[in-house]
Amino acid sequence: MVFIVPSSFRIYSFSATHEPVLRVKPDSLVAFEIRDAFDGQLDLSGEYLSNIDVVDRGRINPATGPIWIEGAKPGHTIEVEVLNVEVGDRGFIGRRVFRILNDTIEANSFRIPVKPVIGVIGVAPPKGEASTMEQGDFGGNLDTQEITVGSKVLLPVWVEGGLLALGDVHASQGDGEVSGQGLEVSAKVKVRVKLHRGRILDKVVVDYGENLTILASSETLEDAVDEVLDAAKKLLQKAFKIDGQTALTLLSLASNLGISQIVNPKKTVKIKIPKNAFPIDLGILLNEYG
Amino acid sequence: MVFIVPSSFRIYSFSATHEPVLRVKPDSLVAFEIRDAFDGQLDLSGEYLSNIDVVDRGRINPATGPIWIEGAKPGHTIEVEVLNVEVGDRGFIGRRVFRILNDTIEANSFRIPVKPVIGVIGVAPPKGEASTMEQGDFGGNLDTQEITVGSKVLLPVWVEGGLLALGDVHASQGDGEVSGQGLEVSAKVKVRVKLHRGRILDKVVVDYGENLTILASSETLEDAVDEVLDAAKKLLQKAFKIDGQTALTLLSLASNLGISQIVNPKKTVKIKIPKNAFPIDLGILLNEYG
Repeated sequence: MVFIVPSSFRIYSFSATHEPVLRVKPDSLVAFEIRDAFDGQLDLSGEYLSNIDVVDRGRINPATGPIWIEGAKPGHTIEVEVLNVEVGDRGFIGRRVFRILNDTIEANSFRIPVKPVIGVIGVAPPKGEASTMEQGDFGGNLDTQEITVGSKVLLPVWVEGGLLALGDVHASQGDGEVSGQGLEVSAKVKVRVKLHRGRILDKVVVDYGENLTILASSETLEDAVDEVLDAAKKLLQKAFKIDGQTALTLLSLASNLGISQIVNPKKTVKIKIPKNAFPIDLGILLNEYG
Repeated sequence: MVFIVPSSFRIYSFSATHEPVLRVKPDSLVAFEIRDAFDGQLDLSGEYLSNIDVVDRGRINPATGPIWIEGAKPGHTIEVEVLNVEVGDRGFIGRRVFRILNDTIEANSFRIPVKPVIGVIGVAPPKGEASTMEQGDFGGNLDTQEITVGSKVLLPVWVEGGLLALGDVHASQGDGEVSGQGLEVSAKVKVRVKLHRGRILDKVVVDYGENLTILASSETLEDAVDEVLDAAKKLLQKAFKIDGQTALTLLSLASNLGISQIVNPKKTVKIKIPKNAFPIDLGILLNEYG
């Protein structure tokens, strides 16, 4: 059975004060119906957005949810396994509307393959309220390519129930998201929600493809690099009982620093740690009691 | 026939004043014998470097060469096609020595695959002298993973003859080179040197795998990002006769910003432009008269 969360249930901030729209047990399948980053307000019928100057800009980046995961408590980790992303047949970027046909974006005379990105995914932060434009260790507007079909997104739980919400899907978006947008689309995202009683790091970690990817967001790229590197060192030290200098040496040889996005309030940097060279046992880390 | 440049011919800076050690016609095959980043001064017989504190630090990052390419003039492009990189059987990083066996680096209990990087590759800059620690639009200490076997490195020619030199090979190095070093090794690098009378950009461009990769180096990551993004926009505009805003839109959807290294005097950023989505005709660009 799949629980469906319609896009009529949506939030513009992550906060413990939001009433959950659904309560599920761990290991549930949930389908989120997601509106585009302009909340479905735009007229996509033409080649250009005709009404972008008159829309309500208070309704940017809606996230569908939040949902309460039964038993989730601070110190735990919510794992969101992305099973499927179905994107709309039209999207926009800047003032342009591009059609999507046969998993290809028809952009000018170019053909760009669809590679969906879930731009916003997060839980309620430890305290206060974070706009869905923001990003941090609660998740949020991370705009990270590795958050896609087949990824397992590990979100630290900060408040009881977690309060997970998803939004801002891009049919395609490169590392950097250099114009400030991907191809903004509506979507249906099907996930399996799991719950672990331990935590890898106080950071968002994505298990995708050949890598474990750690994310950090900060005012400058240099600060985000420092943060993500420090987290990666800690992860190797914890997983393999090695000292910090050895961890840094190994990271220099085989891990890859990357840029998720440079255009949101904070900039998001990632470090990709190859699972092949560094066989980290996630099961052990995720089952450790906080 | 392969010209061989022995490592006894080496420089510690890129400059038009260096006497060429070899003069070759375009399309020549050249094998560079390369000393490691400490110029072969270190004792690699143990597990740790025993003499690192007493070596001559004026001899860091030697580059083998320079060679004169006949007919090369400012405005042209030298293409260095990397045919083969053979690395030594031991390398060092920090104070550690790691063995290399069957294309695998034995680092502590980890097995890291050999993926050679040519850390230093460059030509004489337009004026003055640039240390082989530095990097810029003459090339230099770029420490970029895409500069490896199978890549075609396109270097703008700034002075007559070009004056190409190579050095600082890493048996492996991740994006970021976060500890400040890769696995520093001696090597033999076999290349084919070509000459084109046009120029893609006043930047180092690498044609490797699925991407054209443009490199830029600056004091901060943000400045290097601005520089590389501006270059990528110009390239798309030039190749496809599109305006700057359209170029930025397309780059946001399908190109990937990345980090080459964050530890040298300047930081090197790259942008990877997928050849599949953007079929740029290099032949036309490289044959344009400056």
